Amino acid sequence: MLSIQDIREAQERVRPYIARTPLLRLPALDEFLRCQVYVKAENMQITGSFKLRGALNRALRLTPEELACGLVCASSGNHGRGIAYAARMLNTHATVVIPNTAPQVKVEAIRALGAEVVQCEASERFDTAARIAREQNATLIPPYDDEDVMAGQGTAGLEIAEQGPELDAVVVPVSGGGLIGGVSAALKASLPDVRVFGAEPEALPRYSASLAAGEPVQVPFRRTLADALVSQMPGRKCFPVVQRYVDQVVPVADPAMLRAMKLLLLQGKLLAEPSSCIGMGAVLQGTLRFRETERVCFLVSGGSVGLSQLAALDAAE
Amino acid sequence: MLSIQDIREAQERVRPYIARTPLLRLPALDEFLRCQVYVKAENMQITGSFKLRGALNRALRLTPEELACGLVCASSGNHGRGIAYAARMLNTHATVVIPNTAPQVKVEAIRALGAEVVQCEASERFDTAARIAREQNATLIPPYDDEDVMAGQGTAGLEIAEQGPELDAVVVPVSGGGLIGGVSAALKASLPDVRVFGAEPEALPRYSASLAAGEPVQVPFRRTLADALVSQMPGRKCFPVVQRYVDQVVPVADPAMLRAMKLLLLQGKLLAEPSSCIGMGAVLQGTLRFRETERVCFLVSGGSVGLSQLAALDAAE
Repeated sequence: MLSIQDIREAQERVRPYIARTPLLRLPALDEFLRCQVYVKAENMQITGSFKLRGALNRALRLTPEELACGLVCASSGNHGRGIAYAARMLNTHATVVIPNTAPQVKVEAIRALGAEVVQCEASERFDTAARIAREQNATLIPPYDDEDVMAGQGTAGLEIAEQGPELDAVVVPVSGGGLIGGVSAALKASLPDVRVFGAEPEALPRYSASLAAGEPVQVPFRRTLADALVSQMPGRKCFPVVQRYVDQVVPVADPAMLRAMKLLLLQGKLLAEPSSCIGMGAVLQGTLRFRETERVCFLVSGGSVGLSQLAALDAAE
Repeated sequence: MLSIQDIREAQERVRPYIARTPLLRLPALDEFLRCQVYVKAENMQITGSFKLRGALNRALRLTPEELACGLVCASSGNHGRGIAYAARMLNTHATVVIPNTAPQVKVEAIRALGAEVVQCEASERFDTAARIAREQNATLIPPYDDEDVMAGQGTAGLEIAEQGPELDAVVVPVSGGGLIGGVSAALKASLPDVRVFGAEPEALPRYSASLAAGEPVQVPFRRTLADALVSQMPGRKCFPVVQRYVDQVVPVADPAMLRAMKLLLLQGKLLAEPSSCIGMGAVLQGTLRFRETERVCFLVSGGSVGLSQLAALDAAE
């Protein structure tokens, strides 16, 4: 099981390559979310999301010979961009397998970093990536179900603990569980009294279902606006960490995410992708409630949004 | 002439009412602006812009009797919102005279704070406000040409000096000169080696013309995208401060502002109004150049933007 020591070592390893993103106090959002609002702005991370942290931590543990054979991944976008950037920093090549449903802005950003892009059906992306890795003798780096990836992603949690020792709660977007696994392990070791909540798309309630069942279960594939949170099942290595450290995981409907994205943009002045606004969406739809005096950090996980996607905000309440 | 002591006293006076906005390091913008980019995020200030600082400092110097008679101002939007908020905080009423050209989002924000709004032609706004102040026996608070207002706005400069002692240069949007007057006086007293640049709309080059002439001169009214930077002449109290402390004021064309706004939004993940992006516009159009190792703070003065205004970004390069 992932330990705080793994995360501390990851922090030393990735430090030269990543941004220490700001923890912002956003008083303009207090009246809307009925608590003292903080944001950990991973939308300002290099490559536009937290995914770089995990990708780099895994890549930096490879031998020079392994690294020279290249990196491969399956990704809904942000992990692929992290891998592409890591490959560029470490002077090797990357192949990114990405579903046809990913936003164009993410595909272009990956190509701009010099990686090869292979597009396929969302359900086939892991098989396709595994086949390419075998053919090229390259290293497959999973998006979440890997202890090095989880430890790297957990470095965002160490930073939150250092920057916001006064926090009462942290709300984290959930897909396969790598981010919330790493972040919750880091937070509970550093600030034992802080509560950690996960927010996942109502359309894909893989953690709500699995935590109820006591083991990882798969949910049927359904579309959601949260294009970065599309895993159908918890990672087997992530699940026990989430089970141990996370206080609650709640489901959030697409319209609440969109309302949260509009709120964060127009009142908070921050651009984030719909998936990253899911925690604030949980509060807006009334599923999560805090006291007005509570200091709550929303981890805003990524900001890869194109102008064309902003048009959809007109329809949000 | 405005002194650093005036600004320090203003800081103590307004501290309980304003946000200490973050100074953000935005590495994602370095490659575009060819320097080490920092942003002083006054778009995250309460009321959406730095204007609150000056409005509050002036209102807090009134006697209880003066305050009870109310506040009046002429404003292109942000000053009016600052006055409306100050009036609300200090339990008095406000009348805001606003040009017909002001964005709807700003008018609505002022009304939402409970102020009375009077709309008129841009050229008549100061006369209209003066008449209303006489009729109501209320206090007219000018948007920039006032030492208390300038001192209040200068508190943003004190914060920059405290938050970024490593800075080499600061770039500030310019209209009547209250903000850059206060900020440059604060910066040069705190960090004598920092260079301070102003950026003003090419359509309304009132400071370029006045600095060349050695005295305040009026320029003809012309439309600009920079709806918050529409003064035709330097403030008489602002001009000598700018003349003494500011290294250079440069003109910026509308398309460069729009490109800068798009860059700040999509790469920097921050929403700011066109006027507030003028400093980055100066660099994008090549009028200001820095060395890649220089640490440059762009004061992003406000963020009052509606969704409808974002559509214009599609046309930006």
